[in-house]
Amino acid sequence: MTKIMSPEELEDELRAIGAARYHDKHPFHTLLHGGKLNKGQVQAWALNRYCYQSAVPRKDAALMSRCYDRQLRRDWIHRIHDHDGEGKEEEGGIERWLVLTDGLGLDRDYVMSMKGALPATRFAVEAYVRFVQEKSLVEAVASSLTELFAPKIHKERISGMLENYDFISDDVMQYFRRRLAQAPDDAAFALDYVKRNARTPETQAAVLDALRFKCNVLWAQLDALYHAYYDPGLTPPDAFVPA
Amino acid sequence: MTKIMSPEELEDELRAIGAARYHDKHPFHTLLHGGKLNKGQVQAWALNRYCYQSAVPRKDAALMSRCYDRQLRRDWIHRIHDHDGEGKEEEGGIERWLVLTDGLGLDRDYVMSMKGALPATRFAVEAYVRFVQEKSLVEAVASSLTELFAPKIHKERISGMLENYDFISDDVMQYFRRRLAQAPDDAAFALDYVKRNARTPETQAAVLDALRFKCNVLWAQLDALYHAYYDPGLTPPDAFVPA
Repeated sequence: MTKIMSPEELEDELRAIGAARYHDKHPFHTLLHGGKLNKGQVQAWALNRYCYQSAVPRKDAALMSRCYDRQLRRDWIHRIHDHDGEGKEEEGGIERWLVLTDGLGLDRDYVMSMKGALPATRFAVEAYVRFVQEKSLVEAVASSLTELFAPKIHKERISGMLENYDFISDDVMQYFRRRLAQAPDDAAFALDYVKRNARTPETQAAVLDALRFKCNVLWAQLDALYHAYYDPGLTPPDAFVPA
Repeated sequence: MTKIMSPEELEDELRAIGAARYHDKHPFHTLLHGGKLNKGQVQAWALNRYCYQSAVPRKDAALMSRCYDRQLRRDWIHRIHDHDGEGKEEEGGIERWLVLTDGLGLDRDYVMSMKGALPATRFAVEAYVRFVQEKSLVEAVASSLTELFAPKIHKERISGMLENYDFISDDVMQYFRRRLAQAPDDAAFALDYVKRNARTPETQAAVLDALRFKCNVLWAQLDALYHAYYDPGLTPPDAFVPA
């Protein structure tokens, strides 16, 4: 990585990371979308994933807290509204996620307490927030680029989960439908920012590492779910145990 | 400070800190509002104060990045919009501050570069951002409580500066007029939060210290201006020199 890449070459490298490492490749997702999990396992997935969803606005605020560029803050802040909601008309992605966990029969206070989440989930999620707090701004932006690969997984999830689970109804899948509309614009903006601002070999290597790191954050969460709830099914102390 | 205070006693202590330490007591403000400064000195004040204004959204984002409570984030985020602006209809407080520096004949790019600001200004401002990043959430909220005392100084500033300086016109004072409408609600919200959440002697001592700290952040900026531009007028290297 000693030679500088053109912006287009950098984009190709970023996309190659997604093709190899995005969590749609994880066997837990194949099981989830293919109808191979029972309701308890889907509950475990939704309850753990809440930790990630609820951390995203903190991550975006952390990015803004490091940003001296007013225009970039103005362009970024809608991400916080997208997740936290705004006023009465926009409930936000976290609320929509809780509609999913409600629909799965989980107690909302229990989900929000995160007491039943796997420690590995919490560690991964907080590592992501910390990464954005501590790394350079362009690395922080680059770590959001998993959104480039999200629409495909959301589409698979909507169709696969609706088709394969009788305990999943259309109304609880609104989170994913909304993200299909939001993620592409966010990803395009972040990709453009990274291509314009990673202009040395060192910075280009750093943004590629940032995307690998973020893929690891997502992958590690599915590893933990697989281990705790599928095979070998070793649920750690205090973690959620399906009824 | 070993005895727990009632919320009302805590409020009295917080207000006593403002009465003793808020920067409306600083001689530089008396000079500023009383028409005792020349245009160059007012330029120096406005240019240095830009550093503070432009850091406020980073401070508020830092607070939100530490906040696990979605409702509190939803209640806080308008502060970022108040300063950064939102869409075309709301220019934001930073833009309004730049209208003031424009009106004073300062080059906007030079102001925004902060290259002419006093090092002591930058140190104080960044200490504030760091405080909010590192201290407890209730201390971070408490550090915003200088807003309790702001409306009085804004009113004095509007009338005093308009009356006393022929180079200050009504249209450049919009920043202060808008803050007269914004600050009281923000201060009331933060005061209520602090009174409800500082419920041990240790936490109450910490929030009082947080407000003292914030008063120091403001006071130190005026000390630096006084020293560099009034008496003895020792302007440090690279700092703005009035024409």
